[in-house]
Formats: sequence, C-alpha cells, structure tokens
Amino acid sequence: MTNAISIFDTTLRDGTQGEGISLSADDKLKIAQKLDQLGVHYIEGGNPGSNSKDIEFFERVRTMKFNAKITAFGSTRRKNSIAEHDSSLLRIVESGVPAATLVGKSWDFHVHTALQTTLEENLAMIYDSFAFLKRNGVEAIFDSEHFFDGYKHNPEYALSVLRKAQDAGADWIVLCDTNGGTLPSEIHEIVTRVRSELSAPIGIHTHNDCELAVANTLAAVGAGARQVQGTINGYGERCGNANLCSIIPNLQIKMNYPCISDEQLQSLTTTARYVSEIANVHMPVGQPYVGNAAFAHKGGIHVSAIMKDSKTYEHISPGLVGNKQRILVSELAGQSNIISKAQELGLDINANNEKTKLIMERIKDLEHQGYQFEGADASLELLLRDAFGQMEEMFKLESFKMLVEKTNGIMNTEAIVKITVDEQTVYTAAEGNGPVNALDNALRKALVQFYPSINNIHLADYKVRVIDEKDATAAKVRVLMESTDFNNTWNTVGVSSNVIEASWEALVDSIRYALLTMSRVEHVQDEPRAQLGLVNH
Amino acid sequence: MTNAISIFDTTLRDGTQGEGISLSADDKLKIAQKLDQLGVHYIEGGNPGSNSKDIEFFERVRTMKFNAKITAFGSTRRKNSIAEHDSSLLRIVESGVPAATLVGKSWDFHVHTALQTTLEENLAMIYDSFAFLKRNGVEAIFDSEHFFDGYKHNPEYALSVLRKAQDAGADWIVLCDTNGGTLPSEIHEIVTRVRSELSAPIGIHTHNDCELAVANTLAAVGAGARQVQGTINGYGERCGNANLCSIIPNLQIKMNYPCISDEQLQSLTTTARYVSEIANVHMPVGQPYVGNAAFAHKGGIHVSAIMKDSKTYEHISPGLVGNKQRILVSELAGQSNIISKAQELGLDINANNEKTKLIMERIKDLEHQGYQFEGADASLELLLRDAFGQMEEMFKLESFKMLVEKTNGIMNTEAIVKITVDEQTVYTAAEGNGPVNALDNALRKALVQFYPSINNIHLADYKVRVIDEKDATAAKVRVLMESTDFNNTWNTVGVSSNVIEASWEALVDSIRYALLTMSRVEHVQDEPRAQLGLVNH
Repeated sequence: MTNAISIFDTTLRDGTQGEGISLSADDKLKIAQKLDQLGVHYIEGGNPGSNSKDIEFFERVRTMKFNAKITAFGSTRRKNSIAEHDSSLLRIVESGVPAATLVGKSWDFHVHTALQTTLEENLAMIYDSFAFLKRNGVEAIFDSEHFFDGYKHNPEYALSVLRKAQDAGADWIVLCDTNGGTLPSEIHEIVTRVRSELSAPIGIHTHNDCELAVANTLAAVGAGARQVQGTINGYGERCGNANLCSIIPNLQIKMNYPCISDEQLQSLTTTARYVSEIANVHMPVGQPYVGNAAFAHKGGIHVSAIMKDSKTYEHISPGLVGNKQRILVSELAGQSNIISKAQELGLDINANNEKTKLIMERIKDLEHQGYQFEGADASLELLLRDAFGQMEEMFKLESFKMLVEKTNGIMNTEAIVKITVDEQTVYTAAEGNGPVNALDNALRKALVQFYPSINNIHLADYKVRVIDEKDATAAKVRVLMESTDFNNTWNTVGVSSNVIEASWEALVDSIRYALLTMSRVEHVQDEPRAQLGLVNH
Repeated sequence: MTNAISIFDTTLRDGTQGEGISLSADDKLKIAQKLDQLGVHYIEGGNPGSNSKDIEFFERVRTMKFNAKITAFGSTRRKNSIAEHDSSLLRIVESGVPAATLVGKSWDFHVHTALQTTLEENLAMIYDSFAFLKRNGVEAIFDSEHFFDGYKHNPEYALSVLRKAQDAGADWIVLCDTNGGTLPSEIHEIVTRVRSELSAPIGIHTHNDCELAVANTLAAVGAGARQVQGTINGYGERCGNANLCSIIPNLQIKMNYPCISDEQLQSLTTTARYVSEIANVHMPVGQPYVGNAAFAHKGGIHVSAIMKDSKTYEHISPGLVGNKQRILVSELAGQSNIISKAQELGLDINANNEKTKLIMERIKDLEHQGYQFEGADASLELLLRDAFGQMEEMFKLESFKMLVEKTNGIMNTEAIVKITVDEQTVYTAAEGNGPVNALDNALRKALVQFYPSINNIHLADYKVRVIDEKDATAAKVRVLMESTDFNNTWNTVGVSSNVIEASWEALVDSIRYALLTMSRVEHVQDEPRAQLGLVNH
C-alpha cells in the first residue's frame, strides 16, 4: 500500500453547513481555484440538484480547468424507487463531474428512525445508487454516515453496508464520524477491522465535537485510511469538520505521508487566510500552523531562547507552511514579505538600508492601527511607491459631505466631494444607493474629465469588519474593497472608527491604483493626464 | 491505581501568555472562584515573585476560602547558587500556598542553549529546589519542560531529570509538550515508558500547535497519567494550551475517568463563557461542548431527524455540560427548522396550518432578499412573534437624517432621529464616532426616558457583507449585529442597498428584542412602560 494520501476538500459543501457561513457561486469558484493551487485532489462543490447557487457553480465550473477532481454530492436513491428515476442522481450525472460522493446510512438506528425503512431496502438503495454512478462512468465515493456509531451498535450491519457499496463498484469507502463523538483509540480499532474485511480503499471523515477531529483523522490514516476528508479552517456544522490546515502538515511534516508538494504546502497559510476572508469569518489568532499567533512569542524567556535558536520554542520552521515567526514585544512581522513585494515592483529595498527601516516602521505602525495588507495588495503597492517617491499626487481631497436621510420610508443619499486636480478645484455632487456608492459616484464625476477610462472600473466586493470588538459601534472598522476593470482585480484597505472614512480611504486607494495601471497601459497623452501623470511613465 | 483525575487549571498563569489576554488581580480572583465552583483541584495563580498583579493576587487569595489548592508557579533555582538564597523560591514559600509548580529543563539541548549550563548543574538545580519546597511543607509539582522533545533526543538524560525530582520528594512529575509538536502515538509510548521507570504519580501538560492538545492529553491518561494541566477555552501562548472544557467531558462522559461531579460538569458552559467575558476574548461559536453552535443544527435533513430523536445527530445530551440544542434557520434547511424554533417559543405552529405557510413564504421571501436568520436568532424571534400578533409596536420611526463630513482632515458625524412612542413624538440628535454609533446614540437618547435600562445594552460585534457582488457599492448589503446586556447575547440582521438603512434595521431589531426581554424580566410597572408593553405580559 502506498503512503500517499488523497486530500478531499469539502469546504464548499460540508463547510457551508457551519453557522454564519454562506458562499455565493462566485465565492465558491474563487475558493475552488485557490484549493486547486493548494493541490488538494478532490473539491466537493455542493449538490447540483439542491439550490440555484450550486446549480450555477456546477454550470460555470465546467468551463474552467482544474487539476483537482470537481466532485458533486448527493444521497443514495430514495426508498422504494429506482436509481434511474432519481432526479438528484440524474443531476449529478448530467453535471458532467468526474467524481461524486453519495452519503448513505450505516447505522441501523438511523435506517429505522430517520429513513424509516428496512435494513434490506437501505442496502438496496446503496447498491443501486453506486451501480448507477459506475454505469455512467463517474468515480464514486461512499460517505458512510455515522459509520462508527453504527459499528458500535451493530457491527455486522455496518460492515454489510460497506460491502454493498464495494460490490456495486464504489471507488472509495469513506467512514464518517458524523456526530463527532468517537475517540481516537476507537477509530484506530474500527478502521483496522474494516481494512481486514474490505478490499476497496478507505477514507475518513471526522467532525470536531470532542476537539478530536484532527487526531481521529491521523488515527485512521495510521490504521490504513488513504483518503482524508476535511475543510479549510475546519469550517462545518456544529463544531466543524476536520481541519485540513492542521491535518495536511501533520501528515506530511510529522508522519511522512505525502499529501501535496512542498511548494504547495508553503501556500497553506495564504490559502487559509484567503478562504477566511471570502467566507467573512474571523480566523482565530491561535489557529494551529496558519494562525497569526501560531508562531508568535510573548514570554520574555521564550523570546530570548528563540533568539538563540528558534527550535527551542518552535515545533516546526514556520516557513514550511508559509507562516512566519512573530515576536510580540518587538514586532518584526512581514519584513521579508514586504521586501519581496518591493523587489517584485523593482524598488531598491533591502533589510539594511535606512529607507527600508522607515518603511517597515510605517507598516508596523499601520498594522498596529488595524490595517491588514495581506488582503490589500494594491494599498501595499501604493504605500511602497509613495515611500520611494514613485507617485505624484493625482488628486487631493479638500472635503466631502454626506447626507443620508430616511423620511416616510424613503431613503435619500447624497455626497458632495471637493478635490483639487493639478491645482484645479473640482466640486461635484452625486446621489447613490448608499453612502459608499454616492461617494464613489461623486469622486468619479470629478475625475472623469481627466481620466475618461475611469468609468471602466467598478467595485466587485466590499467588506467591513470590527477590529476591536470591545465596544463595537464606537470601535475601529476595517474596510476591504475589491475593484475590477474586467481584466484585473485589485484589493484595497481602509481603517477608521468611522465606516464612511474607512470606506473613503479604500475607495481612494482603489482609484489611485486604477489610474496607475491606466497610465502604464496607455503611453499616450491627452493633455491633462500628461500633466498629472506618474514620474516613471 | 485509581482512575480519578486531578484537574490542574493554569488559565491564570499559562493562559495569560496568550495573545491579547491580560487579566487584572481582580479578574484573576473572580475566575479563581468560578474555577473552584467548577471543581478543579489545583488553581495555578501565577508567580508570586514576578509582577505586582501576581503579588496582589497571592496576598488577597490568602484571605479567601477555596476547595481547590491555590498553586504558585516558579522555576528551579538559578544556576550556581543555592535554593535558600533564591528570591523566587523564597517568595513561593512566603506566599503561604499549599502547593507550587516548578518548571525545570529536561531537554539537554535547552540546558546547553537556553540555560547555558552543564547537564549536572541542571540536575542539582532540580534536586535542590524540590528538596527546599518539601522541607518547607509545600506540595511540589515538577513541570518538566520540553520533556517529549528531550526524551526523543536523549531519553536517558530526560529520565534522569525526572528521577532527580522524584528523589527530592516531588509529589507529581508532569511531562510537558511545551512546543506542542508531539503526536498522540508518541505521547502514549513515552508516558508508558516513564510510568515503568518512576513511582511518583505522573501528570500531562500539552499545547495545541498541531491541534492535538486534547488528544495528547487523553493518550497520556490512557497510558497512566493522573494529573491533567490545561486552561479554560484552551487559552495560552501561540495556539494555546490543552482545553479543559473539552478534556473534562471527554474523560468523564466518554472514558469513565471521574474528574468533577456531574452537577459541576453542568456548569462547564457557563464557566467557559464567564471566563471568555472576563478575558474579553470572543468565544468561537463552534467551540466543542460549550460553544453556542456546539449543538446547533442547520441542514434540513439533520433537523428533521433531530426532531424524531435527538441522538441521531448529537454525540451527547447537551445538558450534561450545561449547553443546549439550537435549530438554525437557513436556505439549506426545510420548514422543520422554523417549526421547531416556533415551538421553542411556545407559538402554535405546525406544517399544516395556513398561518404557518404564510410565515414560511415570508421567511423564504426575506431570505431571497438576502436576509440570513441563522446568524440572527433575535430577528427571527421578532418576526415570528410579530406574525402571531404577540408584539405591539414599541416605537415608530418617523424619520432619521445623518450628516457625515470630512473637512480639513476632521470627521464629523451627526444623526437626528424622530420617533413616536405611544403617540408622543420624540426628536433627538446625537454625535457618534461613525454613522451607526450616531444613530444608536440618538435612538437610545429618545428611548431612555421610557426604558431606563436600555443603557445596559451595548453592541458587541458588527459585520457587513455585500450580498450580490456583481456591482458592489450599488448592491445589497447585509448587516449582522451582536448585542449584549452582560447576561445575554443576541443577534439581529438588516438588509438594504444602503448600509445605513441595513444597520438601522439591525439596530432597531436589537433594541426591540432587548425591550422584550426587559419587560419579561420586570413584571413591574412604571407608567410609560406599562402603557407600551407587550400584549402577553
């Protein structure tokens, strides 16, 4: 048996069962691309027959290229019917996916109580459904729901369920600890028994209700399971699914089971943070391996030992998973990231020069105020270019005013913006559907005469998060904005105790960045733009 | 050997090494009392020689009564000195505690690199320090730092360190996985070996860097460890310490190792939430056993099965740890979620009646517009109560106006609110740090004369996300708000293309819900409230 582990990601399906997690079809496609870059082997996208978002996802995903197998999810056929007439199974086949997971019952109690059918009919449902998928050329994965509980209550029936799926041609038999109540020692013992009874390859799917999902997955792999199902950051119903962000490095670094390439493993931290941004779920600062504090050192003794040799208080080198060491007393975070970003922009930066130190100080100070440049590349680029004198002021805000009122149930929002462009004062007013839209409209109106192509830009996403939760409406908020001109997408950030001011900051960065790109592309020259333009273009 | 487990809590010492956790002496005393009620056996309070907070804690704690042993923390004596002259050891003895933990090195690499002394001197430091504590009548616990890493590199030296502490009279030998990098299988094997070499009782102290701290603790207990060190909610440096809130129920409910009484176990959830309040750290909604979503059900199939028999999707009865079942409402869920929520509120609802169908239609319609009730229990409750005619209008918005301006770099935000309360028009204006804060201030100002306790409420969290991202600033946004009155926490939602209107909606729901609870609690009767009050109170 090979030691290679097949990583099955269900962030887009089981992960969305988590409280507060709701992903649009667009979000799902973005995450799928990121997962593909990470190198997971299966990406379970949802149920192609269940709702409009999932239907849209499966339609759009067909036109894209993936290394991972895009996988559809469904159940075994309905009781007392036939697979060929089961609309859910038909939709899976019609969706054109290379692989599908079907969930089926393996606990006799559930067959009686939840399905309300006979043990024999449940076996037939499993057999028919897998035979149907295999006849249609789909790789078929059996998620045997509540397998461990089922095995503990009626081992013979639970095993007969697995055998049925195997006999019908299922490619993987995945044992699910659906309620998350099983202990690692039990998992090890039961997986060992299953391996001795079956020839099909075994997978494991665990939940974190006892804070043991990761350990249970490792125990199953130790007993011979070779597919691991889980989600990024452990998202999922109740206490979540098994967290792939901990499982992958545990298996690969600590236990020598190859999962993804070493380069891909180095993208684990950015993947975890990207998914948390898209899902708009705050990532726990202490999340193992990928959290912001996973390699942060606070205690004085620890810090002085760390300075002598970092393995004194670090179980792995943080770079292996793309994370980094942080010393909380004198924070040096992100230096190398920033240096490499600056080098990418062709700026003369290195850890020893004076200007670099000043830039680091400035970034440290901004991060301390709540800015976060990981999700705001464009703002970081502007900051670096500003520091290197590579940008002239394109426009200057004199003032803005905004009025939002609701009278007789009708909302009215107006913004007035006063800016100076090249010593010329421009004063505009505009309405909007909301305050940010009104500001955006007024600012474009002021700029369009200088930059006609500004109308091609639009905002693609807008997110607000409270930074300090102690006193929320009076606390600081961070606005992350995503903008696009249909060819490119860029992200900017703003921070203030006032959501309008934070939005304005992110908006101004977005437009400054867009203008930068425009003048790069168009080397020509209508009069006003040439006067305004950038030093080095 | 008895199976009873001694629970050693280090929330007040190792827990405070966590990023963002800072406890005053007063906080520590409050938490200590709560821990004592929970029934832990040792409460490690800090280092009585290290800082003024800890000194104050140990002074004040002497005057109070505890069942648990209040424990002081320190290190083995300094190199090349004698215990009797070690100010840190002297302070421990002077503090009058019944028990003390001393940390010492068991990894040869650390002796050389961090301590910069000889292996022999390290052994002498350990022997002298424990002999000193025992001569002074203090129960002595040895935390052998980096024991597992030390054992893997030099097992004979690591074991000789433990023997020295045992020879000097240490009452407990605690094996620490300080860097959190050890796997459960290794823990089991090494603890087994240690048990065969030593006669003193063994303890375990793990960290969560591999998301395995709970599993590692259970593995050690399985191999014979009888003291468990950890913290409430797993607070601690980097990824945190072993989480007692998961370990205690796992040991007691699943593995039959008695830790605390069944009644005390039922206070686990309130203890966890209390400590998170005092520490001012947001508790993850999906925290095992004690989190708000630990027994929350979202998927429609799950919910319909749960209603047939709750053990279909619950690994334990939530009441065992003082938590409760929740049914979340969302697009993934069928009608059964809403029905069970209504039943929980005592409303006459069932799938067959006409009113129920209308409510379902209304909720489906709102969800289609972008509302999300799974994260907004309070808004859902208001909607159901409204539909059943259980609520009268508490106040009516006539209009609001908001002005946000930035001039010369200075932000100014003002809100004017006009409401009617019981046919009386109230007109107020207020400033704020941002638009939501200004609206909140103006609305409270209008209501406080009718509901004086409204000032106890504050907003705890505020989140905004764009629903349809295609055209973001003109698209709809959803605002989720979390409010608290220190006893309870509730969540509300608002949706609009205008973030101010969406925030207003969520704010109004938050305040309506709070007023509902207030009039429930206070059956009395000041004039204006009685006139305004609810139909059924």
